[in-house]
Amino acid sequence: MGIELSTLGRHVLIEFYGCPSDIIENNALIEKFMNEAADYSGATIVDSVFHHFNPYGVSGAVIIAESHLTIHTWPEYGYASVDVYTCGDTVSPWKAAEYLSEKLKAKKTESFEVPRGMVDKIKQFAMHEISEVQVKSMLEGVSK
Amino acid sequence: MGIELSTLGRHVLIEFYGCPSDIIENNALIEKFMNEAADYSGATIVDSVFHHFNPYGVSGAVIIAESHLTIHTWPEYGYASVDVYTCGDTVSPWKAAEYLSEKLKAKKTESFEVPRGMVDKIKQFAMHEISEVQVKSMLEGVSK
Repeated sequence: MGIELSTLGRHVLIEFYGCPSDIIENNALIEKFMNEAADYSGATIVDSVFHHFNPYGVSGAVIIAESHLTIHTWPEYGYASVDVYTCGDTVSPWKAAEYLSEKLKAKKTESFEVPRGMVDKIKQFAMHEISEVQVKSMLEGVSK
Repeated sequence: MGIELSTLGRHVLIEFYGCPSDIIENNALIEKFMNEAADYSGATIVDSVFHHFNPYGVSGAVIIAESHLTIHTWPEYGYASVDVYTCGDTVSPWKAAEYLSEKLKAKKTESFEVPRGMVDKIKQFAMHEISEVQVKSMLEGVSK
């Protein structure tokens, strides 16, 4: 059994302006913060990938059972671009956003939430009848 | 040298409703389509990660020199959620979106573009003066 949802997921897009370069050019630190943010939000990390650019900047994704977190940093501009996408209602994308906000020490943060996977449209366009879209925990399906 | 930009990146969020299950539950196919979509858009793939859920569904990210592509599929609902985020003006996120749209055979597709990294705010909040934000190709920095 589960709770009927109106959307499968919540996707928070965050712009961090005026971040100290020594933070966002530190690849190991960014990778650590992203994993910690996922943990802090209550998500289950299933895999991740980080790429370090030369001379600086990092792009990375943390795949969580509940969807993903991504980051791209431009240390030369003091800018970091973050996404936190979660599905279900056991995890809040805003907790991860809050954690990163504290760690990246941006002078200016802008964020907004986009609903993903509208349940009425899932039902309308599905190939077969779907009686109820539930908070299906993908945790059950995690096979690392 | 480069062309002055008003935003660093373009982020396209796409909802694919009513996708045939046999496509979006096929992990290998989804991984292939995502990589092909990146190629088709002219992006340079630097790394990727895909996680297959049990009994079905895939979550994955392709890190490109120009940012990323992500996907999450719910075969039981015929729904796939895709993001294409590109920076610079040599790659169009819409080309990747178009490619995936053709491959995922959704009955209904909804998408919109979010500008990421506003140049005026980067300049306003930077720790040091930035005279010009350019189309810096991160390709130069790809060290696989």
